[in-house]
Amino acid sequence: MTRPSSAPIGVFDSGIGGLTVLRALLAELPRERFRYLGDTARLPYGTKTGETVVRYSLQAAEALLDLGVKCLVVACNTASAVGLEAIRDRVRPLPVIGVIEPGAEAACLATRSGHIAVMGTERTVSGGAYQQAILKRRPDARIDALPAQLFVALAEEGLSEGAIAESVARHYLGALFEGHGAESGESVPDTIVLGCTHFPVLTSAIRAVVGPRVRIVDSAETTARVVRAELAANGLASSSGAQALGAAQVPGAAQASSVAEASSTAEPSSAVQFIATDGAERFARVGSRFLGRPIRPDEVQLIDL
Amino acid sequence: MTRPSSAPIGVFDSGIGGLTVLRALLAELPRERFRYLGDTARLPYGTKTGETVVRYSLQAAEALLDLGVKCLVVACNTASAVGLEAIRDRVRPLPVIGVIEPGAEAACLATRSGHIAVMGTERTVSGGAYQQAILKRRPDARIDALPAQLFVALAEEGLSEGAIAESVARHYLGALFEGHGAESGESVPDTIVLGCTHFPVLTSAIRAVVGPRVRIVDSAETTARVVRAELAANGLASSSGAQALGAAQVPGAAQASSVAEASSTAEPSSAVQFIATDGAERFARVGSRFLGRPIRPDEVQLIDL
Repeated sequence: MTRPSSAPIGVFDSGIGGLTVLRALLAELPRERFRYLGDTARLPYGTKTGETVVRYSLQAAEALLDLGVKCLVVACNTASAVGLEAIRDRVRPLPVIGVIEPGAEAACLATRSGHIAVMGTERTVSGGAYQQAILKRRPDARIDALPAQLFVALAEEGLSEGAIAESVARHYLGALFEGHGAESGESVPDTIVLGCTHFPVLTSAIRAVVGPRVRIVDSAETTARVVRAELAANGLASSSGAQALGAAQVPGAAQASSVAEASSTAEPSSAVQFIATDGAERFARVGSRFLGRPIRPDEVQLIDL
Repeated sequence: MTRPSSAPIGVFDSGIGGLTVLRALLAELPRERFRYLGDTARLPYGTKTGETVVRYSLQAAEALLDLGVKCLVVACNTASAVGLEAIRDRVRPLPVIGVIEPGAEAACLATRSGHIAVMGTERTVSGGAYQQAILKRRPDARIDALPAQLFVALAEEGLSEGAIAESVARHYLGALFEGHGAESGESVPDTIVLGCTHFPVLTSAIRAVVGPRVRIVDSAETTARVVRAELAANGLASSSGAQALGAAQVPGAAQASSVAEASSTAEPSSAVQFIATDGAERFARVGSRFLGRPIRPDEVQLIDL
């Protein structure tokens, strides 16, 4: 299986959190086209068993393959943590890029003391993939792993700032960051890596608890740079601008899309096709906050996996 | 399709919230056996479109039919609100009991002023089923509908009491219940109906916001009484004790169960068989809070829908 460099890049997430990664990809790779698939009918993945996450991830990968993508970005930390090898096996030799390794890279670049806090869903944190990826780069790292499942619901509900978000951030981080005085002599992490693509919208609430000196990093920008490097290494970088290419219709889509039409107007948004498994209106409304630009419900196509 | 009165009662929910209904059923109908199916792989239903909820509900109903149940309790408000008629059509003539009508009945019995607040998921509240069921009984009722999606995540996370739960309760209820002074002369609901089976575990947080005089009701006990009446009307009430009957194994179950074994010891728990679509350990751990008694992970069988 080979694909032309003019083919789009497939981006997959359990829902809308991966739009924070797509945002970085659009900034890093303005000449590329994207197919973003959010499995909104079955989110959250973070509380499901690894076996179920792998099964769902393979279904999503195959749907994107059917759309002719030239590489796959697994923009979901949970799926990256437990499903990346299975996806690689299935779509070989197309490049598959997850968000765990880039996130670990960002954390290791940011930390000075080597004491890092990893925040993520139950499944991501309990699987230990972040911890291993950090220790591979920095064997002397000290890592505190913090499951923070409720952050997903807060982000989805649009309650990512304000008193409630801060009290939840304090619930997860208070003991570690506020419970230590200078007198205790105990070390506090100097870096937090946001190991879930939903979490970047909660940065200000986290900042309110941990103070101004702790570095808060996520995997979005590092992932975008890894994707650029992988495309170049595989001769897959697009040589034409995204605007010149019409976006193809999704076969079997349950809802008509205006993406192909919009693409002819040469708007930047024409570079992206949004696909979800449920709730186009909700995807557009909540997803706009994650992508940083408005998404119209009629830009979102629905498919069954 | 007919079933003997010795057959079990099927109870269906999107996840573990329906265990609050099962708890009431066990108290009301101690001689019956139950099959409880939680679609934990695909929860929450409350943010999904109606079409998807109906499709998932029919799959769950058919799985319970295959287990030989004599009637179905749809212990999920979202599924009751949008899927009840479709389920009735599919399993006719077996009785199907939802939780919306009993919840509305409980609210109308509790209110004096006729001013009622309905709390539920986005989907339940926007569908208007509760509002219609209340107005059918009490045409002069004044109803405030309050979507409270984040309550589901709080309950699932075990954060159903304390400062965070209260601040979320204030977010949803504060404007309505605390924003009115006696001087404003505006009416405040005298009754809140919890239109989601997850919400009863949040009663104390709700109480902290609305004060001691507002009545807080849910559909669990009323539903159990309706089930008793339906069984009697259809000649389906069990004439033998649950303890005397061994619980059958689930065909095709992915995990061995010890329910049949436990049933021979005549423990009350032998009357129930727990089935989930993902996460037996999580079902047992979080579900125990909803059922009000411990559930062991090996009591939970996993199936695919």
